[in-house]
Amino acid sequence: MSVLTGPVEIVGTGLIGTSIALACRRAGLDVLLSDTAPEHVRTASGLGTTIRAALDAAAPDTVVTDVGSVKAAPLDAVAGHPAASRYVGSHPMAGTEHSGPLSANPFLFDGRPWAIAAGPGAAPAAIRVVQALVELCGALPVRLTPAEHDKAVARTSHVPHLLASLVAGTLAGAAPEHLALSGTGVRDVTRVAGGDPQLYSQIIGGNASAVAALLAEVRDRLDLLLEAVGSGDRAGLESLLSHGLAGTRAIPGKHGGPPQPMVELHVAVPDHPGELARLFADAGDSGVNIEDVRIDHDPGRPVGLVELDVAAERAEELRAALESKGWVTHR
Amino acid sequence: MSVLTGPVEIVGTGLIGTSIALACRRAGLDVLLSDTAPEHVRTASGLGTTIRAALDAAAPDTVVTDVGSVKAAPLDAVAGHPAASRYVGSHPMAGTEHSGPLSANPFLFDGRPWAIAAGPGAAPAAIRVVQALVELCGALPVRLTPAEHDKAVARTSHVPHLLASLVAGTLAGAAPEHLALSGTGVRDVTRVAGGDPQLYSQIIGGNASAVAALLAEVRDRLDLLLEAVGSGDRAGLESLLSHGLAGTRAIPGKHGGPPQPMVELHVAVPDHPGELARLFADAGDSGVNIEDVRIDHDPGRPVGLVELDVAAERAEELRAALESKGWVTHR
Repeated sequence: MSVLTGPVEIVGTGLIGTSIALACRRAGLDVLLSDTAPEHVRTASGLGTTIRAALDAAAPDTVVTDVGSVKAAPLDAVAGHPAASRYVGSHPMAGTEHSGPLSANPFLFDGRPWAIAAGPGAAPAAIRVVQALVELCGALPVRLTPAEHDKAVARTSHVPHLLASLVAGTLAGAAPEHLALSGTGVRDVTRVAGGDPQLYSQIIGGNASAVAALLAEVRDRLDLLLEAVGSGDRAGLESLLSHGLAGTRAIPGKHGGPPQPMVELHVAVPDHPGELARLFADAGDSGVNIEDVRIDHDPGRPVGLVELDVAAERAEELRAALESKGWVTHR
Repeated sequence: MSVLTGPVEIVGTGLIGTSIALACRRAGLDVLLSDTAPEHVRTASGLGTTIRAALDAAAPDTVVTDVGSVKAAPLDAVAGHPAASRYVGSHPMAGTEHSGPLSANPFLFDGRPWAIAAGPGAAPAAIRVVQALVELCGALPVRLTPAEHDKAVARTSHVPHLLASLVAGTLAGAAPEHLALSGTGVRDVTRVAGGDPQLYSQIIGGNASAVAALLAEVRDRLDLLLEAVGSGDRAGLESLLSHGLAGTRAIPGKHGGPPQPMVELHVAVPDHPGELARLFADAGDSGVNIEDVRIDHDPGRPVGLVELDVAAERAEELRAALESKGWVTHR
């Protein structure tokens, strides 16, 4: 018998909460769902109050977790509570901050990392229960201390968001004829900065010390960069760019493996319904798996350029197959 | 009769040069193609030498342009040349720095911006010839002074690239269990930092003063950001994020129009050949145009999550059509 027995009470019926509920029901557990105002689970103080209330109200062997995007602050909020050892924070890497609750599904967490960030006082049995929940949802448990978790998301999420926002800020108020030269690069870099400022100021503000520490490192490197650019030090500039290149290669590849050598194949596609379907049908017939797709949105372009990323050793095969069906491709 | 008559001599047979050659041939012009070592057209000094040689060798009414990614430096390089008034620099926003010459095509420039950056001494007739070339290639001429052009690409290309590289640099050497929490956001932000450091140090180094000026502004805002994060000033943080949001909205939308309200629809897709084809066939049947596509690469996930971006007013229609074919979607 699993260490995880119902009933499971879920507070908050957004995408994440409802998807967990569906996964629990799929596993045959009883589920109690209760709604709450978003500020009760989004802000650190609201979340702390909610967790303490859950510890107060629950039966003595109940385990409490939360799915907030920072983990040190809610742990601090339960410090001193007599049942604090039954709280184990967690953080599933699924859904987006933009996602509404419209269409939760029990597969949302399949194969996704789900951080389990137990504090030093957490009961081992409580950790096992949270781990069982993560596994029941099909996710991959990643054990980190709360402080490590918060440093990790500062690095992989909060600081990238802030820097994207700074880049986007340089575009606000720029001359339209300058912005007309925008390509896919700047669109990629700034995409996350389109998120809700109020929500992200709460999330990032809730992880202030880890974010500030890393941001200070970035500022030091920015000073080096300014120095290299300003003094015409091409070797120094190249060295900083090489450090960035090494960083892009450190991001885990698909399915957690090392990044595979990939090739980008560009295909011209008329911009109306059905053409993408035809392209993917032809690509599917080739038997080559497409690892990623991007559509080039350069302004004014009546024919879209679709980028297909494929494993390097299959690229020529895909290219030949598409050309044989009349597609214009280039690498 | 067009102001542009052949023969057109093209130095450099990479993707851009060969595509221009094909567009000229399509228009019935005689074309002379000559290859050159990449460093002759990539570096500012090599490019200047090549342009001066072209002005020396050409007939007295020949117009010379270049397609380099900065425009003030090559203009400086021809200063004092007796035929300098026949040089008009330009910069097509097409192809990528990664693109090889493998598959040039005459449609590469269709509907793309192509900057024309005439210096103050350029002959009006020479500008008209370059404009005719841009139009012959199907591109949209954007007239800017060389200094304006270089400021524009510092903003829309070089500074975003450098900041992406700084973010990527924070990932180099990070603990694998921290990097396991990487999602699509950080992948988007850092993607351009995967470019060749040597090439980009030449490009960015060739635009040092515009880049340094903008980078200094970014550093000042980064200081404000650090101050806001460090002091717990949520309102200040939110204000900086709002400025970034405004910037993302300033980027021109598809086909040069104002950005349209878009909705992201997420669809779970098994990760093997043919499934994307089936998805796009079903989407195509719905008659709703898909504006952008992204495939979520979170590690370990056996089922891919595909993001379809569609006009907000058509999203529900697409969603219903896909659900009716058995796809699991969420927003």
